[in-house]
Amino acid sequence: MNPITMKLQADKLIRMALEEDITSEDVSTNAVMPAYQKGRVQLIAKQEGVICGLDVFLRTFEILDPATTAEFYARDGEEIQKGQLLAELTGDIRVLLSGERVALNFLQRMSGVATYTRATAKLLEGTKTRLLDTRKTTPNMRVFEKYAVRVGGGNNHRYNLSDGVLLKDNHIGAAGGVAAAVKAAKAYAPFVRKIEIEVETLAQLQEALDAGADIVMLDNMPPADMEKAVAMCRGRAETECSGNVTKENIARLVSLGVDYISSGALTHSAGILDLSMKNLKAI
Amino acid sequence: MNPITMKLQADKLIRMALEEDITSEDVSTNAVMPAYQKGRVQLIAKQEGVICGLDVFLRTFEILDPATTAEFYARDGEEIQKGQLLAELTGDIRVLLSGERVALNFLQRMSGVATYTRATAKLLEGTKTRLLDTRKTTPNMRVFEKYAVRVGGGNNHRYNLSDGVLLKDNHIGAAGGVAAAVKAAKAYAPFVRKIEIEVETLAQLQEALDAGADIVMLDNMPPADMEKAVAMCRGRAETECSGNVTKENIARLVSLGVDYISSGALTHSAGILDLSMKNLKAI
Amino acid sequence: MNPITMKLQADKLIRMALEEDITSEDVSTNAVMPAYQKGRVQLIAKQEGVICGLDVFLRTFEILDPATTAEFYARDGEEIQKGQLLAELTGDIRVLLSGERVALNFLQRMSGVATYTRATAKLLEGTKTRLLDTRKTTPNMRVFEKYAVRVGGGNNHRYNLSDGVLLKDNHIGAAGGVAAAVKAAKAYAPFVRKIEIEVETLAQLQEALDAGADIVMLDNMPPADMEKAVAMCRGRAETECSGNVTKENIARLVSLGVDYISSGALTHSAGILDLSMKNLKAI
Amino acid sequence: MNPITMKLQADKLIRMALEEDITSEDVSTNAVMPAYQKGRVQLIAKQEGVICGLDVFLRTFEILDPATTAEFYARDGEEIQKGQLLAELTGDIRVLLSGERVALNFLQRMSGVATYTRATAKLLEGTKTRLLDTRKTTPNMRVFEKYAVRVGGGNNHRYNLSDGVLLKDNHIGAAGGVAAAVKAAKAYAPFVRKIEIEVETLAQLQEALDAGADIVMLDNMPPADMEKAVAMCRGRAETECSGNVTKENIARLVSLGVDYISSGALTHSAGILDLSMKNLKAI
Amino acid sequence: MNPITMKLQADKLIRMALEEDITSEDVSTNAVMPAYQKGRVQLIAKQEGVICGLDVFLRTFEILDPATTAEFYARDGEEIQKGQLLAELTGDIRVLLSGERVALNFLQRMSGVATYTRATAKLLEGTKTRLLDTRKTTPNMRVFEKYAVRVGGGNNHRYNLSDGVLLKDNHIGAAGGVAAAVKAAKAYAPFVRKIEIEVETLAQLQEALDAGADIVMLDNMPPADMEKAVAMCRGRAETECSGNVTKENIARLVSLGVDYISSGALTHSAGILDLSMKNLKAI
Amino acid sequence: MNPITMKLQADKLIRMALEEDITSEDVSTNAVMPAYQKGRVQLIAKQEGVICGLDVFLRTFEILDPATTAEFYARDGEEIQKGQLLAELTGDIRVLLSGERVALNFLQRMSGVATYTRATAKLLEGTKTRLLDTRKTTPNMRVFEKYAVRVGGGNNHRYNLSDGVLLKDNHIGAAGGVAAAVKAAKAYAPFVRKIEIEVETLAQLQEALDAGADIVMLDNMPPADMEKAVAMCRGRAETECSGNVTKENIARLVSLGVDYISSGALTHSAGILDLSMKNLKAI
Repeated sequence: MNPITMKLQADKLIRMALEEDITSEDVSTNAVMPAYQKGRVQLIAKQEGVICGLDVFLRTFEILDPATTAEFYARDGEEIQKGQLLAELTGDIRVLLSGERVALNFLQRMSGVATYTRATAKLLEGTKTRLLDTRKTTPNMRVFEKYAVRVGGGNNHRYNLSDGVLLKDNHIGAAGGVAAAVKAAKAYAPFVRKIEIEVETLAQLQEALDAGADIVMLDNMPPADMEKAVAMCRGRAETECSGNVTKENIARLVSLGVDYISSGALTHSAGILDLSMKNLKAI
Repeated sequence: MNPITMKLQADKLIRMALEEDITSEDVSTNAVMPAYQKGRVQLIAKQEGVICGLDVFLRTFEILDPATTAEFYARDGEEIQKGQLLAELTGDIRVLLSGERVALNFLQRMSGVATYTRATAKLLEGTKTRLLDTRKTTPNMRVFEKYAVRVGGGNNHRYNLSDGVLLKDNHIGAAGGVAAAVKAAKAYAPFVRKIEIEVETLAQLQEALDAGADIVMLDNMPPADMEKAVAMCRGRAETECSGNVTKENIARLVSLGVDYISSGALTHSAGILDLSMKNLKAI
Repeated sequence: MNPITMKLQADKLIRMALEEDITSEDVSTNAVMPAYQKGRVQLIAKQEGVICGLDVFLRTFEILDPATTAEFYARDGEEIQKGQLLAELTGDIRVLLSGERVALNFLQRMSGVATYTRATAKLLEGTKTRLLDTRKTTPNMRVFEKYAVRVGGGNNHRYNLSDGVLLKDNHIGAAGGVAAAVKAAKAYAPFVRKIEIEVETLAQLQEALDAGADIVMLDNMPPADMEKAVAMCRGRAETECSGNVTKENIARLVSLGVDYISSGALTHSAGILDLSMKNLKAI
Repeated sequence: MNPITMKLQADKLIRMALEEDITSEDVSTNAVMPAYQKGRVQLIAKQEGVICGLDVFLRTFEILDPATTAEFYARDGEEIQKGQLLAELTGDIRVLLSGERVALNFLQRMSGVATYTRATAKLLEGTKTRLLDTRKTTPNMRVFEKYAVRVGGGNNHRYNLSDGVLLKDNHIGAAGGVAAAVKAAKAYAPFVRKIEIEVETLAQLQEALDAGADIVMLDNMPPADMEKAVAMCRGRAETECSGNVTKENIARLVSLGVDYISSGALTHSAGILDLSMKNLKAI
Repeated sequence: MNPITMKLQADKLIRMALEEDITSEDVSTNAVMPAYQKGRVQLIAKQEGVICGLDVFLRTFEILDPATTAEFYARDGEEIQKGQLLAELTGDIRVLLSGERVALNFLQRMSGVATYTRATAKLLEGTKTRLLDTRKTTPNMRVFEKYAVRVGGGNNHRYNLSDGVLLKDNHIGAAGGVAAAVKAAKAYAPFVRKIEIEVETLAQLQEALDAGADIVMLDNMPPADMEKAVAMCRGRAETECSGNVTKENIARLVSLGVDYISSGALTHSAGILDLSMKNLKAI
Repeated sequence: MNPITMKLQADKLIRMALEEDITSEDVSTNAVMPAYQKGRVQLIAKQEGVICGLDVFLRTFEILDPATTAEFYARDGEEIQKGQLLAELTGDIRVLLSGERVALNFLQRMSGVATYTRATAKLLEGTKTRLLDTRKTTPNMRVFEKYAVRVGGGNNHRYNLSDGVLLKDNHIGAAGGVAAAVKAAKAYAPFVRKIEIEVETLAQLQEALDAGADIVMLDNMPPADMEKAVAMCRGRAETECSGNVTKENIARLVSLGVDYISSGALTHSAGILDLSMKNLKAI
């Protein structure tokens, strides 16, 4: 993860997660380890997949004690095997124990998203279609999940409501039509925004293209129309299609030739990747 | 959700999630709707399951505009059907549009956890064994996910490291044995804490019981030992068993007769429940 | 100002500004007014210009006491005259006195930016060139200053480093050339980002256009080249020019025919608009 | 800037300004510089003036990466020349690029205030009258602007409403007269507060002096009265005069012989000092 | 308590105290009261003393539920009797129970400080000497404790290090003497600050007076010198004396005729005033 | 104090206390010490007692300047003598002066609590009864005061409302009786909670024991009943008694043979331990 993003965004969320888990102290650890004891522990994969979030994992312990260090034997994005040794952490054993759960909660989720994304993106290999995420992320986890999508081989759609324009049916209705909506967005939005609009018919599509939309989301069109739509857009606008896309059902969309397929499942339906911290010992 | 918990814990997390999604403004909505327009929108189930988080859903919109109101046609914990109308929201259309994604991101995840928990808990019906969650929750989502587990019919294990004692192998190692670990915990922990300890053999179990452990976690014992272990604990300590428990594999544990089975999957592997906001109209 | 932006971004900055001005209490006011006394006060222009920030002005008092109310006799964006009555505020006199300075500090600066922007934008009337702001805003005042630019008739460039791409000489150097920089940005940036790049020669411009840049910033070109550059971009990319642009010197750029002229002066060199609160009386 | 003030007040405002500019990441920089690269960049004056805020400038980069270092060739308060090399920064090039704008936004404003203050204060040289700032500062920039006034050779009036007493016409009205207002303030305010009161006539002034005011602000008096007023105050109270004082119009007040002249323009009308970061190179 | 101070300072501290006491939920209350139930409860004195903090008491419950209301039968500063009914609170019983401890923790401490201060201040009645507090307050309780001192009849010394100058032996040493220290402070401090300096001998006192100190703290002088010191200061500076002053030992200082006696004991040694919430019933 | 607790909870409270005391700068110190000067100062006991909070003391200075170092000649929990040298601090003299009051405010209060607790706990020596604290702590000081109780030889009761169950008369009333209340709590509370209930009669006690309460608080029973009550609980539940317990009146309870006596006085009526920083010198 980019170190500036870590400092400015991730740090405070990691810290909050630690505070969520330790409101006064780690009673169990402190009962048996009243004093500093240096130790080392291993991070081991219990499942194969794509590892993601190693910096966040280490940062969790560093927030508890900046003297904690790590040796990494894998890098974000690497495909790992069951049983593989991924890292060794060295530091105050109390810190290694008290931070373990929070650190794994981040790492397992991020790796789960990267793993699911990689598997889905592979189904698009050899085509010009690229895989996109959505804003269907876990609250207060977006910076981690969007990063995991990139590590997994997906692409990021807009980060949030402020940095991208996507005009849906309600916006179109409020504006009084597709052309009016595109025009309103071009007039209002900072000029660095591309204008994306969702269309349901070829007539709407034509209107969007004529109004100068940069991207069109093709929603629920019959396959025959979809084919025509992609042809109409060529050289005029980029195309995206969406709609409950999962690893299991993406195949049906691949042959359409759209530029992008977006899938909320990347961030809301990926399971975790099972990882564990083992073999703690005093050194 | 308890209104005090909402005020003191949930509110700031909901607010942060909104800030995550709107760093300056909702460009799309503001482009086409420059002024206040009262409207109404429906919350509809796209899948059957257990609904959970309706207060959080409404609160998301209230934070944007306290004048937003809701009529609910379902209650947390209710089993809902595909297509069922769950609620109608009334307020500034800009608020209904700008808050939609964040509100659904909470509601879909919470309902997903409740749905998965309900399905798993049903497999324990008719036994005296109860289902527990773990600390394998999503960072900064614990207050929502632990609530969803309860709504789904599960029980909460400790909330975090500060309000429960669970001595694992590393703690036992550090203390110098099972008896020493229990003794240290009894001496150190606030006296209102029950002492739980993880044991792997019948010998360890005996030692734990003799030392006065309140709860024992039986880990990886052969089935025959497990049976003896449960018998040994009767009247002396509560029993818990754990270990990659999912809806699919919990059956093997039900007949053991333990008091509790804990499952991280309730909070880390439940998918979302698909819900949507539809039929927005000005009023 | 959009009410959602007010809630999510502006509110906490207004509150912080109040805390900056009142670390324990307003000693002067509390010395002479120990108890609640309802009163009314007028907001009056001491200078002609464009008023901007009336919602922020009111919100400052509302944060101190939600019961404060206002009647406005002008609206954001209106050109006001010296001596004009702009609003009347009613509430606890202590609140009217204690909030006055902070409320005016916001309103005078926002109105100053809107006034300066309006005057500058007028110099572009009748051309197709539009006026842009920059990121040269006052720290922690961006949400207010960017809004004031829009109210004054300017357009917003990107909000910050996260929601727009602008490749400058250092980025080009790091990437190894114009084409490489554009290519890297297209590969890395979320696909909803337009790619803007700064070029200094016609050769660089050609390279940028061929690489698919969406916007080019034409920097320090001789006038003859500038003319050619604009022609080269027609239909292929939008054009922006910049460089210490002020109200006084913008004329030289107007005839170039670029799409956008950006000016840091809008937010870093506009003076304040002089306003005052007068005629407080108990009611 | 005092290092304790930096830690306790400035740090969080600098950090917030960085978060304002980088909500997820610096897309442009990260696109072309995926990894750490050490570099050096120069800070150069593009205009002559008084430099102020070098510690804040460096701190901005240190917050992004504590390993960033600087060599300074000028000190706060120094009068610098156009083209002068002020500092060289060394660190991760990504940090140097991503922090540039925020660091300059602070430094240019602070230097602008110091430059304007120095020029104004020079007009008072050779007299016993000293120049004061006001509370007309930019919201959430007071700690920086009040410091810049001092660096420029001005003096600080009260920091905020809590640490000084200034009774204006509304306070006098509420108290029921000048004497009553002074008496109320003496009774209420912590005894370490000097009591300042604004008077408009010689009769009011006499009342204020008799009541024991420590400072009187002479407001809008005819020149002849002003002369008498200053004489009346000699040895009994300090004198301040105010009222839309700028660098251009301060001359008229200098001969009055008051102890202090306060000017809101120091913080609300100073332009920025133009500075830039140049010659970045990898090392 | 002043309502603006409540909003800007006290509110967040009260909220933090509630979060300290309720990290997830009030388990006991929620177990037996799953739903809203309106109720009323009485606040009763268990000891005689000076009541202080009734607004803070109510605000604690309002933060949990703004619908909570109170009828007060006493006012801050009133001397109350054992058994006296002070207030009745009406609201959600869960809120009344969950907020009780935090609300009383504030009210009992504030009333304790007011009670101790009143008793001490009474010992100064009939003299011109006034009682002062110090900065020896409980961390993060200063806004409450300084208010309680005023309610009890004491006066506030400076609020903190930023709003008052007090030069002690170490400052004098660093400056190179009493005169030098006063001179440095006059040059550096905002001109609205009075300069207070601690002196130990009559020679130092003379030096301080000649240098223009506004207040002198007379420290550890023999009684005879003290008498002379007070005479020397008459008409030239205010006098303060200090040093482990308690209710029990203040008598020895009263006859000295100093203007102020300061006592850290007011805020660090006052016990609590015993109060309780009784007779809760559903209504 | 445990270093993780320091990082996650104490740090922000210490920092807030510093911000409370320094809202802009330490005017006195900065007036006489404009630049860095290394120095050393001693921490000396002015009274005998139990020292507690040395880490917090040092941390206060470290927050102002991480380069501050300390040599400690005593450890938390040690009984110290009047005049004893406890520590020497080395660092920037400005930091040593500006942090002094806040650091002592923490250390004196924590040591006061530890001293009072030690004296009280000694009265229980030789019995099996242990001394408990309560939730009657100073708002936002709980983490410090509960630690001080442990250092003094006391035991901690529950940390807050979320991590322990204590059913009082109002809860019993709401539930409809003792048995119902215990049953509701067992059903609702996380299973790791012990259930404590307050009883006033032997009949209630019997009901509580039969319902499976883990701990009973015996409230206001006549001595004869108390004796029976303790006997009834033996082997079935732990016993606690409470009620305005102080160092002076605890003797009457010692012979009862209860397991725990809780005393709010430990945290609300302990005076401070007098300590001072002396002999600052430049080095």
